[in-house]
Amino acid sequence: MSNKPTLETIDITVFPNGVAELAFNRPNRYNSLTPQAYKDWLVAIQWAANEESVKVCVLTGRGKYYTSGQELTLPDPEEEDLAEKFAQRHLTTKTLVKEMIQFPKLLIGAINGHCIGFGTTTAALCDVVYSVPDATFATPFMKLGFCAEGCSSVLFPRIMGSSKANEMLLLGRRFSAKEMEECGFLRILPAEGFQEHVLKLAGQASEFSVEAMKVTKELVRGVDRDLLLKTNEIEMERLMERMGSADSFESISKFVEESRRKKAAKKKQGAL
Amino acid sequence: MSNKPTLETIDITVFPNGVAELAFNRPNRYNSLTPQAYKDWLVAIQWAANEESVKVCVLTGRGKYYTSGQELTLPDPEEEDLAEKFAQRHLTTKTLVKEMIQFPKLLIGAINGHCIGFGTTTAALCDVVYSVPDATFATPFMKLGFCAEGCSSVLFPRIMGSSKANEMLLLGRRFSAKEMEECGFLRILPAEGFQEHVLKLAGQASEFSVEAMKVTKELVRGVDRDLLLKTNEIEMERLMERMGSADSFESISKFVEESRRKKAAKKKQGAL
Amino acid sequence: MSNKPTLETIDITVFPNGVAELAFNRPNRYNSLTPQAYKDWLVAIQWAANEESVKVCVLTGRGKYYTSGQELTLPDPEEEDLAEKFAQRHLTTKTLVKEMIQFPKLLIGAINGHCIGFGTTTAALCDVVYSVPDATFATPFMKLGFCAEGCSSVLFPRIMGSSKANEMLLLGRRFSAKEMEECGFLRILPAEGFQEHVLKLAGQASEFSVEAMKVTKELVRGVDRDLLLKTNEIEMERLMERMGSADSFESISKFVEESRRKKAAKKKQGAL
Repeated sequence: MSNKPTLETIDITVFPNGVAELAFNRPNRYNSLTPQAYKDWLVAIQWAANEESVKVCVLTGRGKYYTSGQELTLPDPEEEDLAEKFAQRHLTTKTLVKEMIQFPKLLIGAINGHCIGFGTTTAALCDVVYSVPDATFATPFMKLGFCAEGCSSVLFPRIMGSSKANEMLLLGRRFSAKEMEECGFLRILPAEGFQEHVLKLAGQASEFSVEAMKVTKELVRGVDRDLLLKTNEIEMERLMERMGSADSFESISKFVEESRRKKAAKKKQGAL
Repeated sequence: MSNKPTLETIDITVFPNGVAELAFNRPNRYNSLTPQAYKDWLVAIQWAANEESVKVCVLTGRGKYYTSGQELTLPDPEEEDLAEKFAQRHLTTKTLVKEMIQFPKLLIGAINGHCIGFGTTTAALCDVVYSVPDATFATPFMKLGFCAEGCSSVLFPRIMGSSKANEMLLLGRRFSAKEMEECGFLRILPAEGFQEHVLKLAGQASEFSVEAMKVTKELVRGVDRDLLLKTNEIEMERLMERMGSADSFESISKFVEESRRKKAAKKKQGAL
Repeated sequence: MSNKPTLETIDITVFPNGVAELAFNRPNRYNSLTPQAYKDWLVAIQWAANEESVKVCVLTGRGKYYTSGQELTLPDPEEEDLAEKFAQRHLTTKTLVKEMIQFPKLLIGAINGHCIGFGTTTAALCDVVYSVPDATFATPFMKLGFCAEGCSSVLFPRIMGSSKANEMLLLGRRFSAKEMEECGFLRILPAEGFQEHVLKLAGQASEFSVEAMKVTKELVRGVDRDLLLKTNEIEMERLMERMGSADSFESISKFVEESRRKKAAKKKQGAL
């Protein structure tokens, strides 16, 4: 395992049975997705896909959040190479979704806590999703003037039914883990021993014939792969347009301002 | 809002926040769908789609029924222009389904009471569906010798799973709101304050970026639009054949006769 | 009904209302699927499809199992015509799935007890599925080095959502009837009077217009038929490769050996 990457934001553990755990590891930042975090995720998933000794991959997070989603910052117009950085980040995200769609091994999402935005959409690209009981799920895309991504425009309606999918995507409603379980998105495992439980299930899967797993995963995913790859292209194009739009800039400004005010109020209250 | 249509069977209210409520408004006739009611529905939905000040559209009914579905009457062979009227009604229904498929804004179904036939099938064409707890849902197509319409042949299996979809479409089983919620078709809101609750949720959505909503709705619906449009064409062709068939005529006769007998029995009992 | 086939492993009953019940009838062998059982199933389903007096078909089993799935035996290399027999069995299975996909009448799955492998996958090809409360469902394909079949690679994710589908197909988790009901696969009916209950529901459907049923079933199934037929071809090709592979042979050997040991232990315990 000499080639196991060492990453700033993701903690990789490989167990002797061939289970690799990739864990978002910035708990004090709610595992928010900075440009670096997207890059690390891409490196980690590509490594797990290609590393022969890895049979099963578990995607999880450390702390109270799985991930709080994309870190929201207002572009500083004085920053150098702004357009280039934006394009680079866009490409990283698109490639990451593509790698998730094409991941050739069993990919288990182990939702250890709250799950926002890109964390929620990409969970639908995992083969199996487990969650702790008190996690919540949200995609506040409309509030930010964004749009659906991570193939959620296609996968959410299929998994959850159109009404619940649109409540999440178009209305931005936050779902409890229980509701996500009821609509077939995941299965809840007890909070106590959650990580061990998931790793045990992953370990059982690692004993199966690697070839049989690969063939069956290909049968399940193969029928939709082209549609998902195309959906990713279209979603990402729309998202880039949205992120560059005036109404989205305004929405983010409002959001960032609100966050600042809340933080300041909290600080003040703490000081009293 | 000078161009807001005034309709015989549908009550249109537009709120300052851009939410338009279209309400079936013949409660004493259980909001049954007469030829006029189909025409009004079509006018209302086309208006809501095109009127720029409308951001979100809520479809609901007044009284104990959302809609009891198509009003069943036996064709009177002495009536003039029977074939022409039949063809006109057919075209109106087909165009209405088409407009629902292509509706460019957020469309919320607010099921205020019992929901039969075309009311149930077209609910699946709404982006989000809410229901009062004691509504029931049924598509008694087989009893009448009809067939699936409103794209239910495609949308019901996707939303509910094939077994529940076929229980409704092929066996004509009536579903409770709770069961519809469990199979992902809708979400139940409390009966008390139902209308206000839905309008509040619609109002929250009306504050989002109109463009972001449009783009995301297009991502969700766009992938299936051609299939749904084609399904509507095929279903409507089959339905026209079915409605003109001897076995359907016989089924409707039996149904109408039964209804008459029940009504008469009720009257007699009331007189005693 | 002079042409009603008499079969070794399937019991066929035809009721005057046009309901035909096909029942797996080797309860002392848990209705396991021997080469003969596959052949009988094929004959029975083809007969039900073509026999004009049959309007509705119910598929069920006698005893504590619906079916325990394919009977596992290790190929005896000394057996004559081994390759030919293998190819014949393969063709029978593939044709059977094809007939289930194309079955032109209402097909009801009445799951009377535990349901394993091919029994579980083909249940998803029935229009409506009912189950007793204490049945369990499993597809232990990975344990045997096999792969998804019976169109489960396409139908399971659609019905159950991808996570539950993959828990079953890739992880081999056993589901309770309650969980299968919750994910939309079936509806539970009380154990007492289960058969009568299903036959009554089937009887009600047999009173509907045969033509209306046929048209609506065609609308529901027609949109997916080509995809399902193609999926069957691909799955069966992969399964044939899998069954001929060294790792699958090893998995089956282990499984058969375990079964023998368990049986011996049981016998010994009984003797003490």
